[in-house]
Amino acid sequence: MSEGIDRLCIDTIRFLAADAVQKANSGHPGMPIGMAPTAYVLWTRILRHNPKDPRWPNRDRFVLSAGHGSMLLYALLHLTGYDMTLDDLKAFRQWGSKTPGHPEYEPGLGIEVTTGPLGQGLSNAVGMAIAQKYLAAYFNRENFRLFDFNIYVIAGDGCLQEGISSEACSLAGHLGLDNLVVIYDDNHITIDGPTDLSFTEDVVRRFKAYNWNVIEVPGDGTDIVAIEKAIRRARAYKGGPTLVKIRTHIAYGCPGKQDSHEAHGAPLGEEAIRQMKQAFGWDPDRQFYVPQEVYDHMRTCIDQGQKAQQAWRRLLDRYAKAYTDLAKQLQDGIEGRLPVDIDSLLPKFDPTKPIATRAASGKVLNALMPHLPLILGGSADLTPSNNTRFEGAKDFQKGQYDGRYIRFGVREHAMGAILNGISITKPLRAYGGTFLVFSDYMRPAVRVAAMAKYPSIFVWTHDSIGVGEDGPTHQPVEHAAALRAIPNLLVFRPADANETAQAWKYILQHADGPAALLLTRQALDVLDQTRYESASGVARGAYVLIRQDQPDCLLLATGSEVHIALAAAQKLDQEGIKAQVVSMPCWELFEAQPQSYKDQVLPPHCKARVAVEAQVGLGWHKWIGDHGIFVGMSTFGRSGPYKKCYEGFGITADAVAEAAKRSIASCRS
Amino acid sequence: MSEGIDRLCIDTIRFLAADAVQKANSGHPGMPIGMAPTAYVLWTRILRHNPKDPRWPNRDRFVLSAGHGSMLLYALLHLTGYDMTLDDLKAFRQWGSKTPGHPEYEPGLGIEVTTGPLGQGLSNAVGMAIAQKYLAAYFNRENFRLFDFNIYVIAGDGCLQEGISSEACSLAGHLGLDNLVVIYDDNHITIDGPTDLSFTEDVVRRFKAYNWNVIEVPGDGTDIVAIEKAIRRARAYKGGPTLVKIRTHIAYGCPGKQDSHEAHGAPLGEEAIRQMKQAFGWDPDRQFYVPQEVYDHMRTCIDQGQKAQQAWRRLLDRYAKAYTDLAKQLQDGIEGRLPVDIDSLLPKFDPTKPIATRAASGKVLNALMPHLPLILGGSADLTPSNNTRFEGAKDFQKGQYDGRYIRFGVREHAMGAILNGISITKPLRAYGGTFLVFSDYMRPAVRVAAMAKYPSIFVWTHDSIGVGEDGPTHQPVEHAAALRAIPNLLVFRPADANETAQAWKYILQHADGPAALLLTRQALDVLDQTRYESASGVARGAYVLIRQDQPDCLLLATGSEVHIALAAAQKLDQEGIKAQVVSMPCWELFEAQPQSYKDQVLPPHCKARVAVEAQVGLGWHKWIGDHGIFVGMSTFGRSGPYKKCYEGFGITADAVAEAAKRSIASCRS
Repeated sequence: MSEGIDRLCIDTIRFLAADAVQKANSGHPGMPIGMAPTAYVLWTRILRHNPKDPRWPNRDRFVLSAGHGSMLLYALLHLTGYDMTLDDLKAFRQWGSKTPGHPEYEPGLGIEVTTGPLGQGLSNAVGMAIAQKYLAAYFNRENFRLFDFNIYVIAGDGCLQEGISSEACSLAGHLGLDNLVVIYDDNHITIDGPTDLSFTEDVVRRFKAYNWNVIEVPGDGTDIVAIEKAIRRARAYKGGPTLVKIRTHIAYGCPGKQDSHEAHGAPLGEEAIRQMKQAFGWDPDRQFYVPQEVYDHMRTCIDQGQKAQQAWRRLLDRYAKAYTDLAKQLQDGIEGRLPVDIDSLLPKFDPTKPIATRAASGKVLNALMPHLPLILGGSADLTPSNNTRFEGAKDFQKGQYDGRYIRFGVREHAMGAILNGISITKPLRAYGGTFLVFSDYMRPAVRVAAMAKYPSIFVWTHDSIGVGEDGPTHQPVEHAAALRAIPNLLVFRPADANETAQAWKYILQHADGPAALLLTRQALDVLDQTRYESASGVARGAYVLIRQDQPDCLLLATGSEVHIALAAAQKLDQEGIKAQVVSMPCWELFEAQPQSYKDQVLPPHCKARVAVEAQVGLGWHKWIGDHGIFVGMSTFGRSGPYKKCYEGFGITADAVAEAAKRSIASCRS
Repeated sequence: MSEGIDRLCIDTIRFLAADAVQKANSGHPGMPIGMAPTAYVLWTRILRHNPKDPRWPNRDRFVLSAGHGSMLLYALLHLTGYDMTLDDLKAFRQWGSKTPGHPEYEPGLGIEVTTGPLGQGLSNAVGMAIAQKYLAAYFNRENFRLFDFNIYVIAGDGCLQEGISSEACSLAGHLGLDNLVVIYDDNHITIDGPTDLSFTEDVVRRFKAYNWNVIEVPGDGTDIVAIEKAIRRARAYKGGPTLVKIRTHIAYGCPGKQDSHEAHGAPLGEEAIRQMKQAFGWDPDRQFYVPQEVYDHMRTCIDQGQKAQQAWRRLLDRYAKAYTDLAKQLQDGIEGRLPVDIDSLLPKFDPTKPIATRAASGKVLNALMPHLPLILGGSADLTPSNNTRFEGAKDFQKGQYDGRYIRFGVREHAMGAILNGISITKPLRAYGGTFLVFSDYMRPAVRVAAMAKYPSIFVWTHDSIGVGEDGPTHQPVEHAAALRAIPNLLVFRPADANETAQAWKYILQHADGPAALLLTRQALDVLDQTRYESASGVARGAYVLIRQDQPDCLLLATGSEVHIALAAAQKLDQEGIKAQVVSMPCWELFEAQPQSYKDQVLPPHCKARVAVEAQVGLGWHKWIGDHGIFVGMSTFGRSGPYKKCYEGFGITADAVAEAAKRSIASCRS
């Protein structure tokens, strides 16, 4: 048991959580109460942080993977002196407050990452650990340990049950990430009841199987001496990550609520809180009470943190003298400046040599990546297919942390979350590849990236029935629509090699959110930039390839089907029908254009419109309107040579030309 | 090493795979070649199956979780006498063939399940194992072991790396599913190269941590005596599932290709195949060659299988006399007949008592489930929130296999695949719940269900910003659209308790594919069935709630927003504007209606239309057209009380009424 000021601080955290949840009449009080001792120890005695500069690059990272315990984090932020007031805590879960139901990425506030969807935070932390190792390998020099931060995670049973954590932790063990400490809140309770309803695996043995160090803390989660010792041992351990398993009690000390699954996700009740306060020697009538000595004690974090950061700042100043170029790279990277002019490096593609957009993407990476040392890449075991590994790349492996190509293994979901973790560790950013159809496996991580605007880059190849023989399990048909449904996610489906290069350029120049590249397996013609309008139109989301003064119809397409639209336009031209052909590689960017530009691309008076895309039609009617016809998929695909698939599903120039004539007729009727 | 006829059979499998992949110039030859000995032993000496009746209910199940090795399965089906000819093998991966790139569910052909997306098959198998345990508990009686089949899986490194397999295998260990044998093809190779690039965990230790029995087979994957002994020991093991780990060699015996990652997913090359044939004592000039003695030997499976099935049939006949009612239930279930009239059991909901659709769903389950003993249910640790556990339900647990409520734990992805595995084990079917936002976690399993038309039922509650305080991480906004994008998936978003009941009715009466229920957290009014048209319109996907002879505008909505549309119609009515209000709970069913019905619901001449849904607008323009206005979400949600969220995002009756007036004006301009 903790005593004196420690106990007072811990109980303050507990009651802030209980009171805030009660006031909101919504939330998760049990976990913060049970984990308050551990969190207190971690934040006041272990964590290297400066509440007055939450963005300090060499701060330790704290990830509340069990995001439902958000009040634990908010209470810590308030008590240690971050920009989080008592009124903010009182506004817990209210519209527009700083204290939403689950932590939302707010780096200026000390909220490192958006959590709540279980397993994400833990897997983000693996990404942060990779990032730290790479930053250290790249920037540190003898006597200049610029980057030596650690990553601390609090995770619960739910996080450990989710498959994503198995993927991420297996990889973390493989990579030997000894800068990662995961504290397992082993409270024996989930929403359904006791964990043994469904979760009786031997977690310790499992993590040892992943090559993790495991430390079990004796007691009931309140022995802060033991907890501190365990975390210090974990931090000191070399060669791999550590799991610190702490048996805790949900809603510890709350009469009638401790160890009950009801305390997980519902307010404890005013009476129970009163009783608990009495039992703990607190005034039952006071809510949101913080004794002054608690502030005095916990806000020593500010002084400690500022001193630590000042020392680091001095180190950086000396570093800047010794390693001017590296220091500049670091500064530029943190401030989001690219070290090179992308345009001058982009390969030019020969219009006589067809090439798959995945292969073009590979060439773009070959050209750019040697000049962008702060970008990491990888693939979920589809490197030769995704063309993600650039020439001269070195693998990131245990003991080889200067590599920046990550072998994720067949672990798409963890890859997504790890890309997120890297991409929010400034000055780094990361991309990763798999087949588009397996974007489903990583979708929850993509969603968080979009919500929190992490600049992760998703390279998804094999983007249609163009996959061919592998068949419907590997042919995406619904994925373009499903991804376009996600707010904030830029979805690029380039039509050829030059559009691919332009998409990469846009993505690299814009780090304000995530982006996806949907790339073909099959070779495509390279659009002749002397004959069609420039692929730089990609930056506007959609642009005219073949412009007509008085178009009879509009043909809209993305990706590989742009070539079908062009062929259809040629057929129509032979019949005297003038078709304006529009490439629409990124709907989201086009949406953001001024109406005048949109009207140039899609003249409002021209209602005869056909869209062609080897995907389901969901969403296209917005662009093609009442007289429009969609040519594409309405079912899953089929195994066969890819040209046969296109024919078999009727996605052909003939079909588009016929549809155009029907649409024209429909407008006249 | 195997000798004589065994060796000949094994080599035949190898060369059929090599030749078929070579002919298709596409596919995965390495795995079938390495695993041929194991598969041969399993199919000819262990597996209880009748090639002449692949649907025999008590057959053992074989799941090729490593679905890329499809030629292994097709070769076995051909050689043991299923409806699979040599010509079918020659048409491997061709358009319209029986032998697509990855196995596609075809129960009449002996293809138990669609595999290829890694980890799915293994997790389906856990569902099948649950199904067998329940079937045995429900139907078996002393001296009547009607159901005692086992489930055998071949899985590779990829399957074991995927998070879904961690979830499913942890649960399988928890449940003690000793009818499940997973053979791990430990070939040390993935697409990127040697497995130790990314996968160095101790798989044996990990599975022991899951409470699995683990057997390691010595040798190089060709010692069929050792392999048979191991699988027999696995089958005999009681108390838990078994992992049989076999060190194999990809492309075993192929010069220059064995143990190479190039042999994973590309043809070996004609010359390499010739050399391999020579080395194996085969004629290098013959392709697709099956020695007659191989047929003679392997097709003894037919006689054995028919005898076994006949014995079972006699047992069933005796059973039908002793247990007439149970036998009828079994027969009805297999033939897809429900044992009760759903209509007569559906609860009637009182229009004066608002109720959340999730709660209404719970009441429907309370009313129906006692009468539907062949339906299993569960939740991914959100039982109290999903209202999935019906009154009187008993948990399915180790040693308690007569229960049919499954505690999935926080394992959504495995739940999806397990529901699939149960739902294709006739006569069973299964449903499972989580929050709608976490449908993302299980999306790959949902996709397979849709593709293969498994009748799984997904209960997704907390279906909008109506979630309120939990905030954007828990508020689905893009999910309705993302799910509607999936072909074959029926997505129901009922507007009230009665629509919920009607949706359940439809789903239970239609077992030809998967269905999803999107249900509210928040209470909704119950639409007065005497005032509005009947909720039985749900079966047609969309129906008119308030009909107008000459509507000025149409208001379209789903789920909770139907009430907003009704309130808007009332406001418009006060201004003399006649709004026809349409509830559209299931777009897919509405799409399938005749045009005449569609035109009644959405009169074509009425172009002034507003859709309201607390989701992103993707897809709605198809229904609302060029003059339509969508009222809904365009961003992620926000934490706050749910009514505040609706106001804050402008999803209100006032906004809908205003939009209607704008749409009417637009039509006139």
